[in-house]
Amino acid sequence: MGIITLMTDFGLEDPYVGVLHGVIYNINSDVRLVDLSHSVQPQKVSQAAFLLGSVYRYFPASTVHVAVVDPGVGTERRAIGLRIGEVGTFVGPDNGLFSHIVAQETGRGANIVAYELTNPAFRLAQISATFHGRDIFAPAAAHLARGVPLEQFGQAVPLEGLVRLDTTIPQWEGKQGGRVKRLKGQVVHIDHFGNLITDLPASLFAELTPNQKQKLKVKHSSSITITGLRSTYGEKLPPAKMMTLNLINLISSSGYLEIACVNGSAAEILAAKIGNKVTVRVAPDIRGKG
Amino acid sequence: MGIITLMTDFGLEDPYVGVLHGVIYNINSDVRLVDLSHSVQPQKVSQAAFLLGSVYRYFPASTVHVAVVDPGVGTERRAIGLRIGEVGTFVGPDNGLFSHIVAQETGRGANIVAYELTNPAFRLAQISATFHGRDIFAPAAAHLARGVPLEQFGQAVPLEGLVRLDTTIPQWEGKQGGRVKRLKGQVVHIDHFGNLITDLPASLFAELTPNQKQKLKVKHSSSITITGLRSTYGEKLPPAKMMTLNLINLISSSGYLEIACVNGSAAEILAAKIGNKVTVRVAPDIRGKG
Amino acid sequence: MGIITLMTDFGLEDPYVGVLHGVIYNINSDVRLVDLSHSVQPQKVSQAAFLLGSVYRYFPASTVHVAVVDPGVGTERRAIGLRIGEVGTFVGPDNGLFSHIVAQETGRGANIVAYELTNPAFRLAQISATFHGRDIFAPAAAHLARGVPLEQFGQAVPLEGLVRLDTTIPQWEGKQGGRVKRLKGQVVHIDHFGNLITDLPASLFAELTPNQKQKLKVKHSSSITITGLRSTYGEKLPPAKMMTLNLINLISSSGYLEIACVNGSAAEILAAKIGNKVTVRVAPDIRGKG
Repeated sequence: MGIITLMTDFGLEDPYVGVLHGVIYNINSDVRLVDLSHSVQPQKVSQAAFLLGSVYRYFPASTVHVAVVDPGVGTERRAIGLRIGEVGTFVGPDNGLFSHIVAQETGRGANIVAYELTNPAFRLAQISATFHGRDIFAPAAAHLARGVPLEQFGQAVPLEGLVRLDTTIPQWEGKQGGRVKRLKGQVVHIDHFGNLITDLPASLFAELTPNQKQKLKVKHSSSITITGLRSTYGEKLPPAKMMTLNLINLISSSGYLEIACVNGSAAEILAAKIGNKVTVRVAPDIRGKG
Repeated sequence: MGIITLMTDFGLEDPYVGVLHGVIYNINSDVRLVDLSHSVQPQKVSQAAFLLGSVYRYFPASTVHVAVVDPGVGTERRAIGLRIGEVGTFVGPDNGLFSHIVAQETGRGANIVAYELTNPAFRLAQISATFHGRDIFAPAAAHLARGVPLEQFGQAVPLEGLVRLDTTIPQWEGKQGGRVKRLKGQVVHIDHFGNLITDLPASLFAELTPNQKQKLKVKHSSSITITGLRSTYGEKLPPAKMMTLNLINLISSSGYLEIACVNGSAAEILAAKIGNKVTVRVAPDIRGKG
Repeated sequence: MGIITLMTDFGLEDPYVGVLHGVIYNINSDVRLVDLSHSVQPQKVSQAAFLLGSVYRYFPASTVHVAVVDPGVGTERRAIGLRIGEVGTFVGPDNGLFSHIVAQETGRGANIVAYELTNPAFRLAQISATFHGRDIFAPAAAHLARGVPLEQFGQAVPLEGLVRLDTTIPQWEGKQGGRVKRLKGQVVHIDHFGNLITDLPASLFAELTPNQKQKLKVKHSSSITITGLRSTYGEKLPPAKMMTLNLINLISSSGYLEIACVNGSAAEILAAKIGNKVTVRVAPDIRGKG
């Protein structure tokens, strides 16, 4: 039985999400629906793109993922479907929502094809100017999940023709050998617990020595600096100055540097917002191999 | 496989909604559950009635819709079930929740029957004084979805005996020919994006000329007036005074006049509340056919 | 078809809950998922334990209940599964989350067994330090729901070895006969409507005469006292002083003393918090049998 996931900025107060469920079941009652999140900040495409990039790998390759964060609804922007071999099918407006997934999967050499969603056979009879989630994307997902090939939905779109967000992974700056290394990132998501998730993946920190991890400094744009990289919320490290506020750095469950507050909300303490700059500094390990 | 939808004012913080799901699956595990909304304002029957009226048409006729916004729980108010031919079955307290649906479907000539839900065979063994959603309405829906005819739940109720909200559609006032026409409505829902949905249906605006649409004025009870009727959030119109606040009028995806704010919240700007008055004025089209 | 319920403090803003659904469907697509609540206050184990204890009886015995409120994630605390005959199977961290259920079912003489969840065959391949809901508990539930016996997950744990919260039910203090009786409890949950749910079960009030119910006094730690025990929100009682605020006492749908506000929020009026003390006083019934 197929799975369709939904990620939107619709919120749960209104019946908008319930209507998506109704439209899907109306076409294909033999499907499981998973609400990934409907609390993306209104029209924040970059946040949704990051969140999608961090969760799609937990679903079977037969899953159809629908994302609707769509500031351009009713304008000329395209509706697209992407099929990524061994990974899943993705449906939404062509505004960069799938940029992280495409970047990650291109890196892994996956086979990716994209098609426009224009075939009226797979849309509702009436298309409103403001709710394409209901009229175009939910029906497309329902038809895809019942086996209609993506090729039947419209014209192929070359991958280079898709709108893409900048998904460049920040890199360490500064030379090894006597000098401090620096990494510049930003806050891309703030979770329910007030944890700040950055765009700095775990791989950037894998090469650090335990000593470097202990002395690593993360400066948030609030100009507060937090020392030490922990592996759990409860891990004991030598108390640092910032520990009076219980702020800590660690690698989040999604695999990115996270600023958290033990028994509190880092977002509140730091008055943090999505887009805040984050700078990481690490000194060369003088007790290291070299 | 049947669908049961749920609309309540229970919120999602508590396990109340989860318990409804459990009670339903306990009776009928062969059903799809759709949460339409659990964020109706506490005990705001009129809001739930409007929302139900705007979404039920997106579900198959085999669907059972449960609505529980129930200020009279534990008093003498009736529990009812309505079956509307080719449309669906509706279950809830007899307090007007289905008024819009009954009005619309009566207008379409649908066959409507109503029954009390009193048969103890289709209720939980113990009926609390405060949670009939769990004890009466969820079990009724589960039994209906597994095929028990509504006739078996209790006595028939004549349609005239049902509690009804006022669902009169506002009409244009003022004569055609030299004088301005006026339409008086109100805000019936405020959505997640801060859009104000009114009770003025699209049909009222269908006869306007493009020129009239461009000059139409909507005055909100905050005494702010917004000019022009757009068809999308992004549509370009000659800038009006109110555009400094980005406020626009358009027809919502549910088919009613909506006051929105491009890239912002109209509800916040206007300090709007459900029940706020809205007045529309349109001048005769001097460049029109006449 | 099996049911898996989920109760966490994850909130619904993030895709955390959606990922749990994905992980479960990935292992066992033949299951119904019920979200009991994801709005437990962050790391408030006692609140989740109370809520679980008030709802599990509405689900079939074949249900697997997953609870993840887990301040000790990544530390040495155990992951456990409990099977309670004729009641259900429970999965979560060993921190007291199932205390109320175990106390209630032990009292009923149910057969209870507990096992550690250590078998890597029933976990994700990679175990993060901060998200055992995804990596351990969701997979365990999915495998249990497809029929894997709990005995295969790890070593048996004696019940006495489980972490338990204090679940002692408060008792009346003060002698019958001339003197006032007193009951000391606390607020254990505040619901969406602002109702304060206490830990004082209905059974404590069953023996009171109608006259005693009418004169019963509940003092909240805000030092406001509310007179009379009602059976519904709408029940008419002789107006008491506190009725100016519309505050009333009644037995909640979950079977505990509740302080509510008719057409308002008791939590707001009383600035109430979970943990607030509540004292009940009842005078001997001089018009009673004695």
